[in-house]
Amino acid sequence: MSELVIPTFEDVVAAHQRIAPHIHRTPVMTSSYLNELTGAKLFFKCENLQKAGAFKARGACNAVFGLSEAKAKAGVATHSSGNHASALAYAAARRGIPCTVVMPCTAPQAKKEAVLGYGGRLVESEPSMSSREAVFAEVVAETGAEFVHPYNDPRVIAGQGTCSRELTEQVDGLDAVIAPIGGGGMTSGTCLTVSSAAPNIAIYAAEPKNADDAYRSLKAGHIIADDAPQTVADGLKVPLKELTWHFVSRFVTDILTASEAEIIAAMKLTWQRMKIVIEPSSAVPLAVILKNPDVFARRRVGIIITGGNVDLDKLPWTKS
Amino acid sequence: MSELVIPTFEDVVAAHQRIAPHIHRTPVMTSSYLNELTGAKLFFKCENLQKAGAFKARGACNAVFGLSEAKAKAGVATHSSGNHASALAYAAARRGIPCTVVMPCTAPQAKKEAVLGYGGRLVESEPSMSSREAVFAEVVAETGAEFVHPYNDPRVIAGQGTCSRELTEQVDGLDAVIAPIGGGGMTSGTCLTVSSAAPNIAIYAAEPKNADDAYRSLKAGHIIADDAPQTVADGLKVPLKELTWHFVSRFVTDILTASEAEIIAAMKLTWQRMKIVIEPSSAVPLAVILKNPDVFARRRVGIIITGGNVDLDKLPWTKS
Repeated sequence: MSELVIPTFEDVVAAHQRIAPHIHRTPVMTSSYLNELTGAKLFFKCENLQKAGAFKARGACNAVFGLSEAKAKAGVATHSSGNHASALAYAAARRGIPCTVVMPCTAPQAKKEAVLGYGGRLVESEPSMSSREAVFAEVVAETGAEFVHPYNDPRVIAGQGTCSRELTEQVDGLDAVIAPIGGGGMTSGTCLTVSSAAPNIAIYAAEPKNADDAYRSLKAGHIIADDAPQTVADGLKVPLKELTWHFVSRFVTDILTASEAEIIAAMKLTWQRMKIVIEPSSAVPLAVILKNPDVFARRRVGIIITGGNVDLDKLPWTKS
Repeated sequence: MSELVIPTFEDVVAAHQRIAPHIHRTPVMTSSYLNELTGAKLFFKCENLQKAGAFKARGACNAVFGLSEAKAKAGVATHSSGNHASALAYAAARRGIPCTVVMPCTAPQAKKEAVLGYGGRLVESEPSMSSREAVFAEVVAETGAEFVHPYNDPRVIAGQGTCSRELTEQVDGLDAVIAPIGGGGMTSGTCLTVSSAAPNIAIYAAEPKNADDAYRSLKAGHIIADDAPQTVADGLKVPLKELTWHFVSRFVTDILTASEAEIIAAMKLTWQRMKIVIEPSSAVPLAVILKNPDVFARRRVGIIITGGNVDLDKLPWTKS
């Protein structure tokens, strides 16, 4: 295994300058109703309004625009059936270089179309991990493309760190910040920025109870990975890796969990009251805040709304 | 019939100052995707993010906070089963005065709860117009409350005019502005402001084909009222009245219509691409822009997103 390259806050600052022409400085929204309900002051950083509909555009743009001209020519590649896939296709299209995404043939049609919509090339594998890896190795051998991992990559983590950098500029005197946790890319970026630039802010992560491997990892003191957990928060099924574990294990105050019903209720409440479309993963922080009022009451809390890519024909509160 | 009192732009300016502490200066959003799709530059004024979820808070607050102390004591009353009802309850609660809303017993539970949620009193009538009017007359006789009509009221129109006043401050060089039209309160407020403060901006209104009484009125040169039109855009079923006809007939360049399917498609597209929850009425302008590209291409167009109050359990693109 290769030596870990740990990104620094200087990398976040450089990333921010590099990606600024390609991303939105997303707004921070508040809700007097949700403040009253929780007893906290909540500040929602709306990455659902980000390019390609999720914070992933930050890390993907940082990786893509940081490549040398020579390296960039061969393009980029990744395996993902989530927001990272379309974000990487978006970033590559902005730079005018090829992007190949390996996705299981069973992935939702909307996810495939998002990649194609940004001009990405889609290569389908069988659903198994072994097929995915074999197909991906072929793609890289054939194209020479640069692999951009969805989260276990210092360029990606530095890019995600620009989100909480904006948040701390947009909101004064935050006491805590909370993000949903899957592979830990956003949480690691948050740790990187906050531990350097605003070390008094406590960092929380929010995880589905049905996919609580990060929670159990933090308690156990080492990475625990689950096999194919089932949760409505489909962005949060992946496990921590070495680089994200580095940050999570050192800087996260606590990881709190919520049930499927609690996540869906928080998602619906956000749509109803804030009039914004957020995906299930983005609702996990509000769900754990509603569940743990003692932890958050009377505090100024930044919440990362990670994305808004939802299949509007299959909402989790309607019967299918 | 009493003499018409026509509000002036000075009334809009006074309204803006009066209501500023009680409403949001809502943001203007853009979408590069929708700009490409339409060939226009679209600027969405997000009144779905307004207090009580719709622009109606502006007119209601202007009426409520403009009352003398003596008059205010007896409270306000209206008949409405839409956004004006909850907006008036919101405004009255802010001032600490009573609010009574007469609603047909058949109105959706969510609409009733919105009024009650702001502390309003709900009085139910039978669904017929005659019952509604009789019950409303009783309420006024009993309470002495001030009647605030949903749109045929100079105080309400002056309040709605503050929306396009903000829009023209937020966006430079608009060529046109377009709002959905039902009773014509928002359109009249837009006419009032734009004709005085930015007379080069063309004013369009967008109407469901299934409830195109304003369109036919404009063509005929007099008010035409339909009996109980059926459309998914439930905020747009009501007819023009004398005061709104005054503005619409003088200042509206054209009224364009869209089918139910076109309205639903534009609504879903807005949710998908802009990640905001808008109600069907708010989608009518985008629907007519998509349908009439020649009219809007290469122009800078302000679109009033009038509200975001939707029953999330009954979305128009899902089977019931």
